[in-house]
Amino acid sequence: MTLRPAVVLLSGGLDSSTVLAIAQDQGFAPHCLSFRYGQRHGRELDAARAVADKAGVASFQVVDIDLRAFGGSALTDDIEVPKDRDEQSMGAGIPVTYVPARNTIFLSFALAKAEVTGARDLFIGVNAMDYSGYPDCRPAFVEAFEHLANVATRAVDDDDAHITVHAPLLHWTKAEIIQRGFALGVDYAMTTSCYDPFEDGACGRCDACVLRRQGFAAAGVADPTVYGGS
Amino acid sequence: MTLRPAVVLLSGGLDSSTVLAIAQDQGFAPHCLSFRYGQRHGRELDAARAVADKAGVASFQVVDIDLRAFGGSALTDDIEVPKDRDEQSMGAGIPVTYVPARNTIFLSFALAKAEVTGARDLFIGVNAMDYSGYPDCRPAFVEAFEHLANVATRAVDDDDAHITVHAPLLHWTKAEIIQRGFALGVDYAMTTSCYDPFEDGACGRCDACVLRRQGFAAAGVADPTVYGGS
Repeated sequence: MTLRPAVVLLSGGLDSSTVLAIAQDQGFAPHCLSFRYGQRHGRELDAARAVADKAGVASFQVVDIDLRAFGGSALTDDIEVPKDRDEQSMGAGIPVTYVPARNTIFLSFALAKAEVTGARDLFIGVNAMDYSGYPDCRPAFVEAFEHLANVATRAVDDDDAHITVHAPLLHWTKAEIIQRGFALGVDYAMTTSCYDPFEDGACGRCDACVLRRQGFAAAGVADPTVYGGS
Repeated sequence: MTLRPAVVLLSGGLDSSTVLAIAQDQGFAPHCLSFRYGQRHGRELDAARAVADKAGVASFQVVDIDLRAFGGSALTDDIEVPKDRDEQSMGAGIPVTYVPARNTIFLSFALAKAEVTGARDLFIGVNAMDYSGYPDCRPAFVEAFEHLANVATRAVDDDDAHITVHAPLLHWTKAEIIQRGFALGVDYAMTTSCYDPFEDGACGRCDACVLRRQGFAAAGVADPTVYGGS
């Protein structure tokens, strides 16, 4: 059986690494895209490459784009990453770690990759539960991009070329994501979520770390993350 | 009166230079974005900068992205640019000069720029008449991107932040575009359209040159383009 190609957005984090395992479990041969977009640290890309290598993907590619040119986010600028926030603070409004139009840009590149590889399936690890403050992590965003993809490309002239945007984590809790990935053999020790890591591990206190720790606890799975700097 | 900011995609070609003039005529302060995306020649970017300078825009920015990594187009690969095609050949199917998902990617960056500048208006010079073979130059594409833009960004949480994608040339002939730009004072000698220019001017024979020459003839406006290499 020939595996169908798919394009998987892979950040090296917990969510996208789980999505990769899900795509493979569904019988896809994943072409993984990661982005060097002016992140404050390169650990994500190292993690993405290691996860892709271990998974035995069809291809892995790092695309260089410069979102720093636009500014406006704590993930790419010198704005301080918030720490030790409770769920109420995290849920209030769009966080400073939001990068303008990031998922729109990432999916646009995934669409280009799909056109040249013949893939009709895009996978993205957005999650509406934990990241309710990010507009581009919501169901309406995923639906709107799928519609755009089908009018923006060769698919518009070929009924057999319908493009599907898969966002399997959209309605899952962090604990459900971890349980599913654990069942599929994802090695979460290879993944990284921290917005502001130390030399020797994750900070343990940014929103991403807080959600990750809570997720492992709620999933009843041992957290393999090294929390450093303390 | 404070001018409203807008983001204008500016390639340095005839169409986008006309769009810039239209945006200014409508009272917008344009933030222009150009892309270095692995084009075979840099003449477009020189033209874009010159056009933006002359127009006195709010800002001009060149964004580096590497579409060559994806291949699949005569504009970025070593595929031969077709020459001397008649209208029937140009209209048949998606041309090899189509760059996968290019306008989707360009508008995604425009959307990021809009978020950080506070602009709610994006301008793009797509044209469904002359480029019927490009899926991402059609009305359905523009509508789909506008919908996406309004669910993908902070606009989703703020009714006053509705984003509009302006594609004023969508249904105009090349002659109508030239007549409008001429009336607005666009200096078309500064613009470049050719897919495959010589050192001393445009080739005069690629699809873009053929449409440009026909457009000036039909508009009854003298063509200031230097056609070289002959």
